[in-house]
Amino acid sequence: MLTLYHAPVSPNSRRVWVTLLEKGREFELVEVKLSGEQFKPDFLAINPFHHIPALVDDGFNVVESLAILDYLEAKYPTPNLLPKDVKDLTIVRMVQMVSVNELLPALTPLVQRILDLPGEDPEKVEKAEQKIATVLTFFENLLDDRPYFGSDNLTLADVVAGTIIPILSLRGGISLDKYPKVSGWCSGLITRPAWQASEATEATFAEFRSNMLARMQQK
Amino acid sequence: MLTLYHAPVSPNSRRVWVTLLEKGREFELVEVKLSGEQFKPDFLAINPFHHIPALVDDGFNVVESLAILDYLEAKYPTPNLLPKDVKDLTIVRMVQMVSVNELLPALTPLVQRILDLPGEDPEKVEKAEQKIATVLTFFENLLDDRPYFGSDNLTLADVVAGTIIPILSLRGGISLDKYPKVSGWCSGLITRPAWQASEATEATFAEFRSNMLARMQQK
Repeated sequence: MLTLYHAPVSPNSRRVWVTLLEKGREFELVEVKLSGEQFKPDFLAINPFHHIPALVDDGFNVVESLAILDYLEAKYPTPNLLPKDVKDLTIVRMVQMVSVNELLPALTPLVQRILDLPGEDPEKVEKAEQKIATVLTFFENLLDDRPYFGSDNLTLADVVAGTIIPILSLRGGISLDKYPKVSGWCSGLITRPAWQASEATEATFAEFRSNMLARMQQK
Repeated sequence: MLTLYHAPVSPNSRRVWVTLLEKGREFELVEVKLSGEQFKPDFLAINPFHHIPALVDDGFNVVESLAILDYLEAKYPTPNLLPKDVKDLTIVRMVQMVSVNELLPALTPLVQRILDLPGEDPEKVEKAEQKIATVLTFFENLLDDRPYFGSDNLTLADVVAGTIIPILSLRGGISLDKYPKVSGWCSGLITRPAWQASEATEATFAEFRSNMLARMQQK
């Protein structure tokens, strides 16, 4: 039995959710309310670092989203989401790591825009936009003439980058016009059943927004 | 021809250096002075995100240290540094990710202690020590009865965790006494030729120390 502990607005847990769906696995989805449930003993026994996502597969606890993706790929290899060719595999790994280390942190200064909240810091937004432009240029070059990163079929790179870029584009005010390959790739991904099924609802965003607002007012 | 762009005090680049040595590859080592050389056009052409390490292999640019490790493993598979067994591979992936996402950030508040500088923040140090204790407990459990993470032979997990933990233990004032397996594992690693050859010299630490001191005085 597979159980995914997740939070619905988190790109970190959505990448695992999408992978489980793409691999056609049956799994239980357990929401962890990040207002404190992550510090409860039951969850700390699964992940002592109190982060989502965490995956439990027949008593085996797996933490860290990228480790979970590699676990799922090794345990459930069909459909295959990692290329065999060395350069293609390396493209996938670079896109995964650049997505989490460069792109995801650039989302933070855009959170006001994403959630329609006041208090945007123009200087931080500009830096984030520059960083995002560098990432998108890098990705545009890596897509070459194939529909997915390093492959003719979906890869873990698409799963990781593809659960961040739609937020930037649809909610963060980042235009993809200058990046036609990334733009086409993104449009294709969001129509996939796995993306549609795991998309955060408006109600989820509204809840996240009111939590953020409460936190801002406490400061 | 393999070229590694690196900085000698960086655990991020040392993990690639160690992997190249363990795999017995010939390579050129190019130091990038992080006082500004990382922003020069020649280096930005290799890594637009201006970070070390970056690896160039016959014109193929690879960025992000964990992507570089997977590239080296796929391109130069002997000796093998990734287990085939699904659970063992997952242990390696978890140790890699926990090392970079939990352990490495906990080094920052200890930098004064590591470099013998004034200005330590006791509250931040305490939090970092708690985080390090959680990681070491997690690692102690994962080592089970084998000498390496997920294997009887060296893995990429040992390379990543093993280029951070010795700094904590030898310079950061963190005792490994409560973690006998981690302690034995660490003592074994630092005697390996790859660790010895890539260890930062006292001169390197002294240079890093004076750079840090200059930066602190500018504030």
